[in-house]
Amino acid sequence: MSESEFDYVEFRRDLHRHPEPAWREFYTTARIVDELETRDIDGLYVGPEVLADDRPGVPDDAELDEWFERARDAGARADVLEKLEGGYTGAVAVVEKGEGPTVALRVDIDALPITEADEDDHAPVSGEFRSENEGFMHACGHDAHATIGLGVLDSVIASDFEGTFKVFFQPSEEIVSGGGPMAESGHLDDVDYLLAAHIGLDHPSGEIVAGIDGFLAVHHFRAEFTGHPAHAGARPEEGDNAVQAMAAAIQNLYAIPRHADGATRINAGLVGGGTATNIIPEESFIDGEVRGETTELMEYMQEKAYRVMESAAEMHGCEVSLSTEGEAPSARSDDALVDIVSAVAGNNDGVWSLVERDALGGSEDATFLMQKVQDNGGKAAYIGVGTDHPGGHHTRTFDVNEDDLSLGIEVLTDSILEIAATRP
Amino acid sequence: MSESEFDYVEFRRDLHRHPEPAWREFYTTARIVDELETRDIDGLYVGPEVLADDRPGVPDDAELDEWFERARDAGARADVLEKLEGGYTGAVAVVEKGEGPTVALRVDIDALPITEADEDDHAPVSGEFRSENEGFMHACGHDAHATIGLGVLDSVIASDFEGTFKVFFQPSEEIVSGGGPMAESGHLDDVDYLLAAHIGLDHPSGEIVAGIDGFLAVHHFRAEFTGHPAHAGARPEEGDNAVQAMAAAIQNLYAIPRHADGATRINAGLVGGGTATNIIPEESFIDGEVRGETTELMEYMQEKAYRVMESAAEMHGCEVSLSTEGEAPSARSDDALVDIVSAVAGNNDGVWSLVERDALGGSEDATFLMQKVQDNGGKAAYIGVGTDHPGGHHTRTFDVNEDDLSLGIEVLTDSILEIAATRP
Amino acid sequence: MSESEFDYVEFRRDLHRHPEPAWREFYTTARIVDELETRDIDGLYVGPEVLADDRPGVPDDAELDEWFERARDAGARADVLEKLEGGYTGAVAVVEKGEGPTVALRVDIDALPITEADEDDHAPVSGEFRSENEGFMHACGHDAHATIGLGVLDSVIASDFEGTFKVFFQPSEEIVSGGGPMAESGHLDDVDYLLAAHIGLDHPSGEIVAGIDGFLAVHHFRAEFTGHPAHAGARPEEGDNAVQAMAAAIQNLYAIPRHADGATRINAGLVGGGTATNIIPEESFIDGEVRGETTELMEYMQEKAYRVMESAAEMHGCEVSLSTEGEAPSARSDDALVDIVSAVAGNNDGVWSLVERDALGGSEDATFLMQKVQDNGGKAAYIGVGTDHPGGHHTRTFDVNEDDLSLGIEVLTDSILEIAATRP
Amino acid sequence: MSESEFDYVEFRRDLHRHPEPAWREFYTTARIVDELETRDIDGLYVGPEVLADDRPGVPDDAELDEWFERARDAGARADVLEKLEGGYTGAVAVVEKGEGPTVALRVDIDALPITEADEDDHAPVSGEFRSENEGFMHACGHDAHATIGLGVLDSVIASDFEGTFKVFFQPSEEIVSGGGPMAESGHLDDVDYLLAAHIGLDHPSGEIVAGIDGFLAVHHFRAEFTGHPAHAGARPEEGDNAVQAMAAAIQNLYAIPRHADGATRINAGLVGGGTATNIIPEESFIDGEVRGETTELMEYMQEKAYRVMESAAEMHGCEVSLSTEGEAPSARSDDALVDIVSAVAGNNDGVWSLVERDALGGSEDATFLMQKVQDNGGKAAYIGVGTDHPGGHHTRTFDVNEDDLSLGIEVLTDSILEIAATRP
Repeated sequence: MSESEFDYVEFRRDLHRHPEPAWREFYTTARIVDELETRDIDGLYVGPEVLADDRPGVPDDAELDEWFERARDAGARADVLEKLEGGYTGAVAVVEKGEGPTVALRVDIDALPITEADEDDHAPVSGEFRSENEGFMHACGHDAHATIGLGVLDSVIASDFEGTFKVFFQPSEEIVSGGGPMAESGHLDDVDYLLAAHIGLDHPSGEIVAGIDGFLAVHHFRAEFTGHPAHAGARPEEGDNAVQAMAAAIQNLYAIPRHADGATRINAGLVGGGTATNIIPEESFIDGEVRGETTELMEYMQEKAYRVMESAAEMHGCEVSLSTEGEAPSARSDDALVDIVSAVAGNNDGVWSLVERDALGGSEDATFLMQKVQDNGGKAAYIGVGTDHPGGHHTRTFDVNEDDLSLGIEVLTDSILEIAATRP
Repeated sequence: MSESEFDYVEFRRDLHRHPEPAWREFYTTARIVDELETRDIDGLYVGPEVLADDRPGVPDDAELDEWFERARDAGARADVLEKLEGGYTGAVAVVEKGEGPTVALRVDIDALPITEADEDDHAPVSGEFRSENEGFMHACGHDAHATIGLGVLDSVIASDFEGTFKVFFQPSEEIVSGGGPMAESGHLDDVDYLLAAHIGLDHPSGEIVAGIDGFLAVHHFRAEFTGHPAHAGARPEEGDNAVQAMAAAIQNLYAIPRHADGATRINAGLVGGGTATNIIPEESFIDGEVRGETTELMEYMQEKAYRVMESAAEMHGCEVSLSTEGEAPSARSDDALVDIVSAVAGNNDGVWSLVERDALGGSEDATFLMQKVQDNGGKAAYIGVGTDHPGGHHTRTFDVNEDDLSLGIEVLTDSILEIAATRP
Repeated sequence: MSESEFDYVEFRRDLHRHPEPAWREFYTTARIVDELETRDIDGLYVGPEVLADDRPGVPDDAELDEWFERARDAGARADVLEKLEGGYTGAVAVVEKGEGPTVALRVDIDALPITEADEDDHAPVSGEFRSENEGFMHACGHDAHATIGLGVLDSVIASDFEGTFKVFFQPSEEIVSGGGPMAESGHLDDVDYLLAAHIGLDHPSGEIVAGIDGFLAVHHFRAEFTGHPAHAGARPEEGDNAVQAMAAAIQNLYAIPRHADGATRINAGLVGGGTATNIIPEESFIDGEVRGETTELMEYMQEKAYRVMESAAEMHGCEVSLSTEGEAPSARSDDALVDIVSAVAGNNDGVWSLVERDALGGSEDATFLMQKVQDNGGKAAYIGVGTDHPGGHHTRTFDVNEDDLSLGIEVLTDSILEIAATRP
Repeated sequence: MSESEFDYVEFRRDLHRHPEPAWREFYTTARIVDELETRDIDGLYVGPEVLADDRPGVPDDAELDEWFERARDAGARADVLEKLEGGYTGAVAVVEKGEGPTVALRVDIDALPITEADEDDHAPVSGEFRSENEGFMHACGHDAHATIGLGVLDSVIASDFEGTFKVFFQPSEEIVSGGGPMAESGHLDDVDYLLAAHIGLDHPSGEIVAGIDGFLAVHHFRAEFTGHPAHAGARPEEGDNAVQAMAAAIQNLYAIPRHADGATRINAGLVGGGTATNIIPEESFIDGEVRGETTELMEYMQEKAYRVMESAAEMHGCEVSLSTEGEAPSARSDDALVDIVSAVAGNNDGVWSLVERDALGGSEDATFLMQKVQDNGGKAAYIGVGTDHPGGHHTRTFDVNEDDLSLGIEVLTDSILEIAATRP
């Protein structure tokens, strides 16, 4: 199938109608595999074949089953779904075209637990491709990412590229838990050059960011405090109060000393505890995160945070269990690739604005893949593709300008060709 | 209908099958009214007729509707249900028999959000009257209380009692919010003597407690903190963190100074906040309570608690809204009535153990009714009727020994007759 | 020397002029010994002879030396002072008069770090016996207590008492650290009956309290937190902040759960830490106390408090050292002795008001001695001797009405005679 | 007097012998004035003439008097001292030499409350110029700064400089409180170019830093909490606990959200409260600071910190008074001046290492003067003069290599001549 014949916009809208959160991208993966199988590719790996076993944040079976059934009901192919059981989502496509380096593109495919806007001026409403999974939404453009991934694949196939090209369709970015297992899957071991891309990020249509940096390394944790219940009126002294432990922890988590070496972050983002006003709380939890401008700074925060939570538990006679729910290191886009993307974008008439470098200021688990390639002696860069988005990322009115899909595909494809040709 | 013909056990089992939580006692009230209408009584007041308007803790309409429908489906009479709309549950029955004082009995009728045991050795299972409202249960014996209320009414009617006798079937005791509105309904204004009763309380079958005291005055509150969300990685400084406000409040709530005048209590029993690890939390809440050995001590705690929560909100740039969810004063059983109950119980062959006075150590909104009567110059007492209960109050295996119903009816009836006769 | 010849008022004023705080009662002890040596007594034990070795709260040598020199300069006898070196203050006098039980009286002798009022309407000013140790003051009447102790001794000697009589002149009550070592000195082992007495306590002249109870058991602690300093601007992350540890401890100390069995108390009464605004604090401390209505309740608080402080230290990477600075158990006055004191006081014309029982509501280490006697099968009581005191206890205008000294001596002597005679 | 005849080393040692802390530089100022009066200068301003009235952190009169007397005893001129009464220390010298811009040099002159090392290998010991003000020390090289200021003045006088030259001998840098009043004195209003200099800063002898940046804006505050005392055993509920307020404040101060725009700092560096274990604390205080990479970031922290402290006071029924004890903005060295200093240093044979730019990472109130000049359209730079210092800044073994004084004088003088000549 040639690029020109395929309707990328329709493909993106199909994904947009079926947003699926982390580790539950059953329909999405199946649709991607559907399309990949029609292409002239040399390798197609799906589900458990593209993920190492240690996958943080996988929901329980009941939750997985629900989304599995929903995907089936929406028309996902049963034979593909079967491979994804247990929440092993995502895929890798490989094209081999003669001698040359191995270049890879990573795109992410998951959605968010946000209810999509239903006003008429929201394009997916008027265009009739609003989310059919109520309460969930592609509010960060990963539907566009998956589409761009397919588009670049088509373009590279159709080009005079020489070497090996891989596209990583990565699940579970939103909870920063898919990047790690995919980086450890083995498929990245021979990659010489890796590009990752993100649409939007407050950059307008026609603007390209050649190299994004400033990824904050991040660690998501869950702390579960367990104490001992008691009647709050009759026997308060018999309780070991898990909510007091949680509150002492929260107060002191935010008070972890600032670090002179760079930015750090801490958040107790979702917390709760107890059962009734008259019972000394037996259980409580904190879903939180720490971040750092570098991986070392994140680890500084994590160490201090864990100490705070363990001591807070002990202070109130409670136990605490701490688990990692997601994680991503920091990373930096290599100059050599940024230079190529800059040059390519500068020569593209559709690009009216070029930003050499910009900082993300957030976290992304593409950094796991970037770091893997860089650790192996390769190079990596993270590219921004502007789009006019009416609402901000992670809001109910987010949307992409579909006209920007082709520009993204062009700039990425041309960069990949130039990288393969020049081996910077 | 004479007492001997009525099957109190079967009535209690019917109520046990249909446990309904606070302000949702639709089936229960309807069944009680059913029975009352067959008795030779002089007054029957239902729903809005027995409650003042200010009713804390009434759930929202959707919740009320759900239970309303459930009651209808279970066979509750439509004409009675109609009167209960809006969660106006409960009833008062009045018997007038010649000259004499007005004596009243108060029983409560609501159930708890506890899933009942389903093991075979749990009597309601083998006896086939386990809760049909899954997740809810008569785990504090209020099904027995309502039955005793009906039984005492029957016995007083059949007796040579002279005066006016009222039975208050009070809703919503478990969240201490039904006692206040019933006390302010007007029906208590002419009551000279009030008895309230509770079954169990760790007293065995055959034991009577002539006067229960040590009610801790209690105030249930809900605090809702509202701040401002922000991305925890990109813009932490733009957030006003409602979870930090909540944590500062919790830490300082428990640290309210002890009071030299007597026992005080504080509990942040159910708390929560935030939405996701990477968002600075916009909202949080505390469902909590304060108690005091006296009403003044409870008010001391309440004043300090509110100040702590308001300051904690301000400290973190948040708003807090504070609402009363339930309340009950302290109270004391009058010696004159306790003496009568003691004497009556001492003369009853079914009573093998008599406890003069005991402390509840918890809270009860019967105290509103007791206080009302005492403020009007009347007298009140709170009586304990022992029963062997396999599980503790508020646990899934709680049950009453049905043989104890008739002893409770006897002791209470005889006490009422003696009170009316002697006007202590 | 007979009682009538001795000027008790002048003796009290001498002590009042020379107030000495805990473990520094050098002049006071020397003056008491001076007087005792002129009496016809059978045993006189001083300093290390009346104290077990474990004495909490003894100040450092420099501080002891300063007061030692001050006592010498004020004219204290060198040979007595010598025995008191190291802060071993206090004395025990013994009188043996034939067959009979061993009865003891305990009085305390230390002063407070309070600057005495210097207005003319303060009796010690007009009477020219204001404190000569600026900054210190007999603001709790222990000068009167020592005088009463001597007076009762004189009276017992002059009486027909039969048995053994001991007076314990106890040091260091104000920091509740002298009672323990004196109780363990051995001198109490054979005591059958013990009276302790306190003047004032808001009881007016002519009022006697036959039995004081409601002693809160108390434990004074010192917590010293040690962390690691760092420059607050350049390297905040290198600090282990002892002030953060202290603050977390304080917040959670006050939040120790209330106990249903009775009153508890907690106070972080004197705290501090750090050296300069721009240094992360390396050191901090808490001088605090816990109390309980019973010794068990105090121990409950202590255990929880220590856990809080240890966890708070750990939470912030600090060490904490915890030491006991003073301690006293709870105690109860025995009915048999209270009855005797009541009868004796009732028969004394100088007593116009008799209070059977009253609660102290504070702490006192006489309880160590009371408990020791009671544990050995003896009986003990704590007596209140009223006096009109212009200012409250522990305030700069406190003073006693010297006319009440003789009434106190009378009531105590007569009670002791009656106890010895009746062996209740 | 010509430069060659004056013994700068001896002058520095004289100042080193007489270290004086902030606002108490009486001897130091008098000695500087002594020397200035022997020079051929056109203006000499002293004490109140060089400081605006608003001077934070001035100690109380007793403290000022003590140092005033000490200076007199050490031989300071009475007529100069007189002008400095009230802690108005510091001086400005002005030289006018024909047409040209106004160039200024700022040096600071105060010492630190640190006890100087007394080991023989500490040069001031062997050289016999160790501090004679025990407990105080020139541990940051301000004795060298004052000397360099005098040296540059001598050199500029002796040179062909054309324009106006001013030297600001600034007091009270260590508590960042002298820079503000001097900046507002009026003497800076006509300054076109300002250089400030610091010796050491971990740069070795022979190294020059052409432009120092990275000054953290800083604000020192003192918070005094006032509550209400009460007996901790008898009446805990009557207290308004100033230590609880302080602890709640400390916990939440450190927990002020991090700011995405740059580095922030917070420290509660010196805290304390309460009087005795058994008294609910009436008073407490926090001496603290906030910092920011920019003045805006510092102000963000200050605003949040003040809100925390006010809310913490309110939470515990206390008042809090907040006062500014010192302050300094951020600042940046202008490129044009840094380029000139670089060029001059590069041409000096004594300079073996040139650092273009370095970050201070701390705070300095020279920034007030720099900012003033820059706000008026002028230019400013902060220069580092390396020296091998055996101990770190602010430690007891700090010392400067006196050989580096002349290099500092040379580089600064030559830079000033070049600035005046080129008017960059």
